[in-house]
Amino acid sequence: MKIAVIQFEPIFNQKDKNLSKIHSYINNIDAQLLIFPELCLTGYYFLNREEVNEVAETSNSDFIMELQSLSSRINKGIVLGFPEKDYKKQYNSCCVILPDENKSRIYRKTHLFYKERFCFDPGDSGFFVIDYPEWDVNIGPMICYDWRFPESARTLALKGADLIVCPSNLVTNVWQSALSTRALENNVYIAVSNRIGSETRNGETLLFNGDSTIYDYKGNVLVKAGPDDEKVIKVDIEPKKTRLKSFNEFNDIFKDRRPDMYKIK
Amino acid sequence: MKIAVIQFEPIFNQKDKNLSKIHSYINNIDAQLLIFPELCLTGYYFLNREEVNEVAETSNSDFIMELQSLSSRINKGIVLGFPEKDYKKQYNSCCVILPDENKSRIYRKTHLFYKERFCFDPGDSGFFVIDYPEWDVNIGPMICYDWRFPESARTLALKGADLIVCPSNLVTNVWQSALSTRALENNVYIAVSNRIGSETRNGETLLFNGDSTIYDYKGNVLVKAGPDDEKVIKVDIEPKKTRLKSFNEFNDIFKDRRPDMYKIK
Repeated sequence: MKIAVIQFEPIFNQKDKNLSKIHSYINNIDAQLLIFPELCLTGYYFLNREEVNEVAETSNSDFIMELQSLSSRINKGIVLGFPEKDYKKQYNSCCVILPDENKSRIYRKTHLFYKERFCFDPGDSGFFVIDYPEWDVNIGPMICYDWRFPESARTLALKGADLIVCPSNLVTNVWQSALSTRALENNVYIAVSNRIGSETRNGETLLFNGDSTIYDYKGNVLVKAGPDDEKVIKVDIEPKKTRLKSFNEFNDIFKDRRPDMYKIK
Repeated sequence: MKIAVIQFEPIFNQKDKNLSKIHSYINNIDAQLLIFPELCLTGYYFLNREEVNEVAETSNSDFIMELQSLSSRINKGIVLGFPEKDYKKQYNSCCVILPDENKSRIYRKTHLFYKERFCFDPGDSGFFVIDYPEWDVNIGPMICYDWRFPESARTLALKGADLIVCPSNLVTNVWQSALSTRALENNVYIAVSNRIGSETRNGETLLFNGDSTIYDYKGNVLVKAGPDDEKVIKVDIEPKKTRLKSFNEFNDIFKDRRPDMYKIK
């Protein structure tokens, strides 16, 4: 199975331009699953709920329906971050659109970063995993700052994820070794799709650091983009290899767990 | 507060020789807390319960009592791995002996590695944290393979640890970046005391990789020993600095957690 991560610079509040670029990528990249950055439909740095509300999409909007048609027609999966609205609620979401539309779902970011709390509600989708038999893969999404909490990737892995997809708009570098650890400690692939460029609002500039990376299930970097280049990185993965959680005759990193000894509250 | 990690080569089944060396270190190192490797009283590679039983110590043995007296007399804390027996049970344990004997406790390794299952029972102490007001520090012990499970360090941090001490007999190198991540994701210091040398039993050799490291609460390496040198590494730490879990005006890595979204079973 071939996956691709698309690192680019979405333009703030220019949905049509961004969407046109996204469609072009989807049509031209030769891979089964395409992973785009967080909020790449609209750009990132909203200041309040009203700004988000003006550009947010519902789960049955034309934007989603068209991606679904395209996905089904060309048999490619699409993971892509966008602002979602649902009645009075607003979420920092990503769609996981798969050729079989019955499998497509939307993940709503669980852990909100920085000023996102003024724009979005905390996600209520929870961490879920989509099994996709055609490609023999189990896909689990998380978004950006979710990386900071080992429980995010752990929850996805315990629910069966082989591949964690992580659309991001990262503004630091500390995530890099941590996401390698998340891959290692769970024995899963992780694909981080980060954006590049910067956005300035009210005199504050956020610089997005690129370095999009696909890690193998031992935490090794398989392929990595640069810090500021528009780039597509691709790699073949073998999802089912992640399912063997033992690493010697006696140890299995899942069976060895002792949940009664763990405190999470 | 100054802490020291002692990296050395315990000699298998030579308790007197090892203990004499340990006492010499305790008397001569200028630090408040001394952290020795896993099972450094006896060496590591036991093959069965009977072998362990012959050399294991009880929690009120002379060995422990003498360390307690020494600790109280010279006002130094001692973390040290030893095989423990308690009636029919046997544990891969470490004592956390503090000058105030009411604070001293024994941690029993939660996650057993490789052939330890033929020698020890899974630890039943659970993860605990000792607050030590005299040094204004909260100390949480884990042992070696416990590193592999993010829940170990997480549990200690959520119980208030400022400093995680990790006596070890590590035989790989993959722990190094993972323990940096454990420090970062929990905002705690971590002191890994690994042994050096090798042990061969029944034709199988285990090579212990040294590289003992003290990490700060951002995951940076403060000081590190080499892969095969007998060495004491020391550093001053500021435990209370770990207690501020926020890193900007809006985010706090503990308050941002959403335990209802996490699966641990």
